[in-house]
Amino acid sequence: MSFSHLCGTDDCRAVSELLSQVGNKWTVLVVSYLGDRTMRFSELRRAIGGISQKMLTATLRGLERDGFVTRTVHPEIPPRVEYALTGLGRELLVPVRALGDWAVTNRDRVDTARRRYDAGAGTD
Amino acid sequence: MSFSHLCGTDDCRAVSELLSQVGNKWTVLVVSYLGDRTMRFSELRRAIGGISQKMLTATLRGLERDGFVTRTVHPEIPPRVEYALTGLGRELLVPVRALGDWAVTNRDRVDTARRRYDAGAGTD
Repeated sequence: MSFSHLCGTDDCRAVSELLSQVGNKWTVLVVSYLGDRTMRFSELRRAIGGISQKMLTATLRGLERDGFVTRTVHPEIPPRVEYALTGLGRELLVPVRALGDWAVTNRDRVDTARRRYDAGAGTD
Repeated sequence: MSFSHLCGTDDCRAVSELLSQVGNKWTVLVVSYLGDRTMRFSELRRAIGGISQKMLTATLRGLERDGFVTRTVHPEIPPRVEYALTGLGRELLVPVRALGDWAVTNRDRVDTARRRYDAGAGTD
C-alpha cells in the first residue's frame, strides 16, 4: 500500500507521526552512524557534533522505544553503555540512508534554487 | 559520499538542515501527493487532512524555495493556483516514497516495540 493513498484515514495520522520520528534529522544521523558500528553515548555525541546531551538522550530513548536501537549496559566500573541497531533498525537504515545520501548529493542544487528564490523570483 | 561520514564538518550542518526539511512529515505528504498529479491548494489540504492552512502554506513555500515545487497562477476569475513537482522534486520523490512506504509497511512492528517498552522494559 502506498503512503499517499492512506490519508484522510486514521492510518495516515499514525504513519505521519512515525515519519516525523524517522525523518527527524537527529534520528537520521544516529541511525546512519550506528549502521557502521556499535557506539557509546560519548562517541555518538562527538561524531555528530552540534547535538546537546539532552537531545541525544531523547533521540536514543525514542529509537529504543520504537525498537530500532538496543541499549546495553556492561557491568564494569565505570559502567559501559553501548548502542546498536536492532534488526528493525537495520531495515530502517536502508530508506534512511537513501534519503541522507540524496540530501548529500543534491544539496548544491537546493542551495541554487534557494538563492534564486530569495533573489526575488518568489516574492509575489 | 556517504552521509554519516560528513559530520563534524560544515557539510554535516548543511545536510542535516536539508534533511530536517525533506524528512518533515508534511513535506513527505505533500511531495507524495504531488507525485501522483498536479493539485490545487484546497485539494491538497482536503487530501492530507489535519493540516492547518498556515502550515500547508509554509510547507508549500518551503518546497517552492528549495526548488521541489512550482506554483502556477492561471489568470482566471477567480485565479486558479496549481502546485506541481519540478524535475528535482520528482527525484526527491524516490527516497521520500521509500521512507513513507517503509513507515506504512512497518508501523505495526514499531507499535509493538512501543507497547513493550512502555510496559516496563525501558524503565531503567
